Amino acid sequence: MTDFWRNKRVLVTGGAGFIGSHLVERLIDEGASVTVLDPLFIGLGGKEEHLSHLPKVRWLRFDMAHDSALSQALQGCELVFNLAGNVSHEDSMRMPSFDLAANYSSHLYLLEGIRRWAPQARVVYSSTRQVYGAPQTLPVSETHPLGPMDVNGIHKLACEQLHLLYHRVHEIRSVVLRLTNTFGPRMLIEHGRQGFIGWFLNRALLGEKIELFGGGKQRRDFTYVSDAVDALMLAGAQQNYWGEIFNLGGSVASLRDVAVLLKELAPNSRFVDVDFPEERKKIDVGDYFADSGKIEKALGWKSSVSLREGLSQSLDYFRTNSRLYLGRDL
Amino acid sequence: MTDFWRNKRVLVTGGAGFIGSHLVERLIDEGASVTVLDPLFIGLGGKEEHLSHLPKVRWLRFDMAHDSALSQALQGCELVFNLAGNVSHEDSMRMPSFDLAANYSSHLYLLEGIRRWAPQARVVYSSTRQVYGAPQTLPVSETHPLGPMDVNGIHKLACEQLHLLYHRVHEIRSVVLRLTNTFGPRMLIEHGRQGFIGWFLNRALLGEKIELFGGGKQRRDFTYVSDAVDALMLAGAQQNYWGEIFNLGGSVASLRDVAVLLKELAPNSRFVDVDFPEERKKIDVGDYFADSGKIEKALGWKSSVSLREGLSQSLDYFRTNSRLYLGRDL
Repeated sequence: MTDFWRNKRVLVTGGAGFIGSHLVERLIDEGASVTVLDPLFIGLGGKEEHLSHLPKVRWLRFDMAHDSALSQALQGCELVFNLAGNVSHEDSMRMPSFDLAANYSSHLYLLEGIRRWAPQARVVYSSTRQVYGAPQTLPVSETHPLGPMDVNGIHKLACEQLHLLYHRVHEIRSVVLRLTNTFGPRMLIEHGRQGFIGWFLNRALLGEKIELFGGGKQRRDFTYVSDAVDALMLAGAQQNYWGEIFNLGGSVASLRDVAVLLKELAPNSRFVDVDFPEERKKIDVGDYFADSGKIEKALGWKSSVSLREGLSQSLDYFRTNSRLYLGRDL
Repeated sequence: MTDFWRNKRVLVTGGAGFIGSHLVERLIDEGASVTVLDPLFIGLGGKEEHLSHLPKVRWLRFDMAHDSALSQALQGCELVFNLAGNVSHEDSMRMPSFDLAANYSSHLYLLEGIRRWAPQARVVYSSTRQVYGAPQTLPVSETHPLGPMDVNGIHKLACEQLHLLYHRVHEIRSVVLRLTNTFGPRMLIEHGRQGFIGWFLNRALLGEKIELFGGGKQRRDFTYVSDAVDALMLAGAQQNYWGEIFNLGGSVASLRDVAVLLKELAPNSRFVDVDFPEERKKIDVGDYFADSGKIEKALGWKSSVSLREGLSQSLDYFRTNSRLYLGRDL
C-alpha cells in the first residue's frame, strides 16, 4: 500500500461497528491517524470492545448530527470513510423515521460539514446492492436500473446520490462502493434483522435450527470483511475515480449452500425448510450476484477469502467471544 | 367525471399552493368535501388568497409533520392528493435540510399516518421530471434511467419510491405523476428560484429584461395548470393503476420560444442573451420533453391548452392580481 496512509488523518463514521472496526484496525496498522465518530446506538452493531484494544484511536461518541462533534471530527481531516448507518431492512420498515435519521439525514449533515470544514477531504461511502432491488439481469453491473424494495434501500440510494451530487456540484472527492452481503467476525449475530448470515451463524453456534425460506434457493454474493476492507482502502487511496460507483462481489452461493457449509463446519448445526413469511417475501429481491469487473479493472481489487474459509474464521471468532455476542459461553 | 367526486372526502396537501388551489377549486365544483393541509410556509408559493373565496374548504394550517393535525386531516379520508413541497432546485442546494423536511421527511409522516389512520385512502403523489436528471434519450418515458441532478430531485425521487413502496408492502393505493414545467395563474413569480417560467412572467409583466442562458436553446415540456389538474383528477378516480408512475407532458418549446411568445403577448417584454451562470450550469439538465403516451392510453388524459393560450391567460391573471404577486399595481 506504499506510504499513502502514514500519518493520514482519517475519519471513520460507524468505526465501532462490524466493518468499521476492521477498517480502523487496518488503518492503524498502516500508520494512519484515526478518528472514529460512533455513538454506539443500541441495536446497530457497534460495540465498545471493537475498539478498546486500539488506544491510539480518537473516539468521539457522537452522532453525525451532533454539530460540534462533527466539526471537531472533520478538523484537518484528509479522508472520510462514511460507514455509519442502520443495515436492517426489517427495522427500516417498522421504524422508517429512525432509518431516515440513521441512513440519510445525518449523512446530509456530514456532507454539509465536509463542505464547510473539510472540503479537501476524500470521501468513501459504503452503499449497498439493495439500491438495485430485484435484479432484472444477472450478474448486476453498476448500470443496472435502480429500484430499492424497502425503506432502507430508498434511503441508501438517496444517500449515495447525495455523495455523488456533492462531488459534481461542490467538488468533494467522493466515491461510492455498493457492498453485497458482507460477513465475518464482529458482525451482528444477536438477531436476524441485519441479514440472514448473522442469524445463520447465531443458529449454528447455538445448535438451533436454521430455517430456510422457499427452499433456501435464493443466491447471494458474499464478501468476507477483510476483502471489503481492501476495497474501501483502495477506493480511498485512488486518484482517478471520484464521482464513480463500484460494485463489490465475492462468493456466489445459495442460502441453502451456506446452511450446508455451516453444518459441515459446526457439528451441532442443522437446518429445516419452512414457508416464506409473507412480510419477508414482499421485500425479498430473489437472486443477486454482482458484476464486480469495474473495481477489479480500475482499482485492482479482487476478493480472496472463500465462503468456507470466511465462515470457518467467523465461527472460530464467535466461539471465542460468545459472551460478547450471545451473552454466554459456548 | 360522473359522480365519483360527489361528497368524496378528499385531503389536499399543499392545497393553498399553485397547483393545489386549482385542484381544490375543481374538487369543490365536482361536489367533493375538501380538507386542505397547508401551513403557508414562507416562500413556497402558498397564499391565503388562493383559498379565501372557497368558504366550504376545511383548512388546517399545519405541516404534515404535525401529528394531531395530520390525524384530523386523515380521519375518514377517502383520497389524498399529496402536492405539498418545495419546488426550488436552487433553494434545495442552499438549504438541503429544509428541502429534506419539505419534500421527504414530512411525506414519510404522511404515509405513516395514512397507514395508521386512513389505510383505505387512495393517494396521488405529484412527482417531477427531475427524477430523470439529464435525459439520455428523448422523449423521456417512465422507464428512462433515474439520475436526479440536485438535492430537490434526490428527495422527490426518494419520496415517489416511498409512495410506491407503501403500495407494494402496505397495500396503500398510491399512484405517482411526474409533472413537467407546470405553469399558469397563481404560480410563484416573485423570484426566479422556482423555475424560469415564473421568472419570465415576472420580467415580462414588469417590462424588465428576460435573460436567456446559453441562447435559450434548452427545450422544456410545458403543462398548463388546468391540464395538470385534469391528470391529477383522472389519477385519483381510476381503479387499475395503483403502484404505477405516469409522465405528464404538454407543449414542447425552447426557453427562447417562450421569451418570443411573451414579447408578442406583453408589449413591454424584451429579452437578452447572457452567459450561463456556473452554478446553474452544474444542475441544468439540457433538453427535456416527455413521452406521455402511457397516461394518454391508460387514463385518456390529453393536454388541451397551448403554450400561447396558457401564457396569455397567465399574463391576464397576473395583471389583474399584480398587487398580490408583485406587490404593486401595473
